[in-house]
Amino acid sequence: MELYEIFMDLALIILAAECFGLIAKKLKAPQVVGQIIAGLIIGPTVLGLVHTSDFIGAMAEIGVMLIMFSAGLETNLKDLMKTGLLALLVACVGVFVPLVGGYFLYSFYHFGGLTAIGSPEFYESLFIGTIMTATSVGITVQVLKEMGKVKTRVGTLILSAAIIDDIIGIVVLTFVISLAGGSDSAGGIADIINKNMGDVAKVIVNVLLFFVFTILAGILIYKVFKVLNKKYPHHRRLPIFGLAFAMLMAFCAEKLFGIADITGAYAAGIILCSLKDSDYVAEKMDISSYMIFGPIFFVNIGLKTQLDSLDSNLLVFAVLFVIVALITKVIGCGGVAKLAKYNLSDSLKVGIGMMTRGEVALIVASKGLSVGIMDQKYFAPVILLIICSSIVSPILLKVLFKKDKNDGNDPDNNEEAPKELETAASAG
Amino acid sequence: MELYEIFMDLALIILAAECFGLIAKKLKAPQVVGQIIAGLIIGPTVLGLVHTSDFIGAMAEIGVMLIMFSAGLETNLKDLMKTGLLALLVACVGVFVPLVGGYFLYSFYHFGGLTAIGSPEFYESLFIGTIMTATSVGITVQVLKEMGKVKTRVGTLILSAAIIDDIIGIVVLTFVISLAGGSDSAGGIADIINKNMGDVAKVIVNVLLFFVFTILAGILIYKVFKVLNKKYPHHRRLPIFGLAFAMLMAFCAEKLFGIADITGAYAAGIILCSLKDSDYVAEKMDISSYMIFGPIFFVNIGLKTQLDSLDSNLLVFAVLFVIVALITKVIGCGGVAKLAKYNLSDSLKVGIGMMTRGEVALIVASKGLSVGIMDQKYFAPVILLIICSSIVSPILLKVLFKKDKNDGNDPDNNEEAPKELETAASAG
Repeated sequence: MELYEIFMDLALIILAAECFGLIAKKLKAPQVVGQIIAGLIIGPTVLGLVHTSDFIGAMAEIGVMLIMFSAGLETNLKDLMKTGLLALLVACVGVFVPLVGGYFLYSFYHFGGLTAIGSPEFYESLFIGTIMTATSVGITVQVLKEMGKVKTRVGTLILSAAIIDDIIGIVVLTFVISLAGGSDSAGGIADIINKNMGDVAKVIVNVLLFFVFTILAGILIYKVFKVLNKKYPHHRRLPIFGLAFAMLMAFCAEKLFGIADITGAYAAGIILCSLKDSDYVAEKMDISSYMIFGPIFFVNIGLKTQLDSLDSNLLVFAVLFVIVALITKVIGCGGVAKLAKYNLSDSLKVGIGMMTRGEVALIVASKGLSVGIMDQKYFAPVILLIICSSIVSPILLKVLFKKDKNDGNDPDNNEEAPKELETAASAG
Repeated sequence: MELYEIFMDLALIILAAECFGLIAKKLKAPQVVGQIIAGLIIGPTVLGLVHTSDFIGAMAEIGVMLIMFSAGLETNLKDLMKTGLLALLVACVGVFVPLVGGYFLYSFYHFGGLTAIGSPEFYESLFIGTIMTATSVGITVQVLKEMGKVKTRVGTLILSAAIIDDIIGIVVLTFVISLAGGSDSAGGIADIINKNMGDVAKVIVNVLLFFVFTILAGILIYKVFKVLNKKYPHHRRLPIFGLAFAMLMAFCAEKLFGIADITGAYAAGIILCSLKDSDYVAEKMDISSYMIFGPIFFVNIGLKTQLDSLDSNLLVFAVLFVIVALITKVIGCGGVAKLAKYNLSDSLKVGIGMMTRGEVALIVASKGLSVGIMDQKYFAPVILLIICSSIVSPILLKVLFKKDKNDGNDPDNNEEAPKELETAASAG
């Protein structure tokens, strides 16, 4: 491919994202839904004008990294501390309920009843549950940003729970894979436990190390940035160094600790969120994001979609799979929020905000395929889940926030100013 | 390569670019010089921390596209019309003098005297001249932008001449290659002329067609954008559609007419330069550019440098090659400006602004290698030329502009406000 050919793909992506985003907005739906549908339409599913590529994938990764960094920057550190324990609980229950739900669905659908613990069928079923565990936070964050809700109590809770949930998802994946792998081997039960414990302990140690690393790096780097901020207030040097720092954190998180790169970027944002100019830095990130990287991330979700393998039998399963995956998250996460005395509307927002699935579900599925615990054809339901949750969750979230506003129960009404106007005003 | 690994490379590029840019600024040199040197240092030439890749190359291409689009947006259409004929003349002479200079250098250095017209040695020598013809405008534009000089008489002349010069360079390349190819073949002189005329005519027709295409598309698209601008003043929709349009023009220029993609992007900028919000659009492009794409373009020049094949004999030739290439451009372009009654300082600025060579010289050289008219080892002198011109030209330009300012002869003094402060103020 010649270099200039990327421009055609990028132009189509940007144009389609903007046009369908606009249509979505006119229909009172979140713009990201329009952008994902734009990807479905210009991608192989409908028109086949643009195909995803390594380059587009890399640009999309930068896009979600920027979104997470910016979300971190907009976090209120005090609120985060306050919601920390609750977020952990939301994440745990939000992983557990879908895991069990997926297990039940597959067991009953394929084997007509519960499968015996330890049997290959059991692990197969449990693995389907595992795919359902991890929330994909990128889309929800963008919706929260669109509505100016990142800094609210609900926004902070969703964000931190989704981050923790990713990590728990990895622990569960490691656990299930090694259990299933262990049960195939000829070793005794002690061997299996040893092996599992080793893998799981490694993941947990890595998570703790990343936590320590983030705090240590955070203290040091925050001091450097504070000096920088004082010396160059509102200077482009600040967002440039901030971006480089976020990229380094993204890299380190995944390379050194095996944690998702976007978690590293989010951590970088949190480290810098108390800077005087954190809003200025976030604004510059948002411009790069909405001009080019953001649309690519959302359109690419649609571009990557391939639904060839969906026959009628699989379709029924896929529909059930999507329904179970969505409902179990709402029950798990929303339930914990409700128990923590959130009102019904806010609890629902938490549950629905956690509903979105994305890359991680695909990664888990790929892992299952490669170790032979899952059949290739189950990719189709996973993709359907990603699309449905990416479209349904933003729409429901927007409805809930709107309803609050109309009912006059919105404590964060002042943050409702549309992002676009803010940007326009600040640039004016 | 895993997706997250791009973040390490990008972070290093951005950090090195900013740090060396800062050092360059402290030393009163243009920041792009610092960024190119940053590339040399972190690239294979010195530390080997980052290697160029398809991804980095594509990001760099977006970078130079953004710079050219933004330069087009900042163009004053009336000035461009006024300087049009002069720019054509500057470009023609600026191609002719280096072509002859390169021919003389190679003929005397390798064959000890002039080579017979039509002989293989003649074409070999002429080809070395051909490599010297095309100016690379990206670096000069960034320097002009850094100093707020794009809209000045000199800035407009350099920019338009450099664009035309690219096109003439392609005509010359086509001519020389087909002449040389023709002389190898067994056909008669009539055949050779027919073949050449065919190729050259094709290039000229393409250029004319692109011109017509740009005017027609321009009239239509400008009207659309004018309506858009009226409906959404200072709205992010404008730069987003602008960017997509620039990308489409870049693609069309190269795909349909065989003209450099950056010329298409520049044309897109000129089409939109009379919009009420053209400055607003340019500002948004500049943010994406300085945050990420711009540094990658300049650092990548350093990253791509490989000087392994430089032995002492070739080194002497390379030094002469660089000197001839630089001086002939200054004489050719500056001479025409002087004849057109520009004062000495402005004439020098035009000549020095046109000195930079870049991608096109490498592309010409690659073409020569692939048709067998040039040896692989001559890549080293070409790369040396690109580095030297990229470093020398910005420094000299800055000195000349500074001198004018100190002498109080600067008619554009009001545009001298540093770009960074402007951006900071507008975002404040």
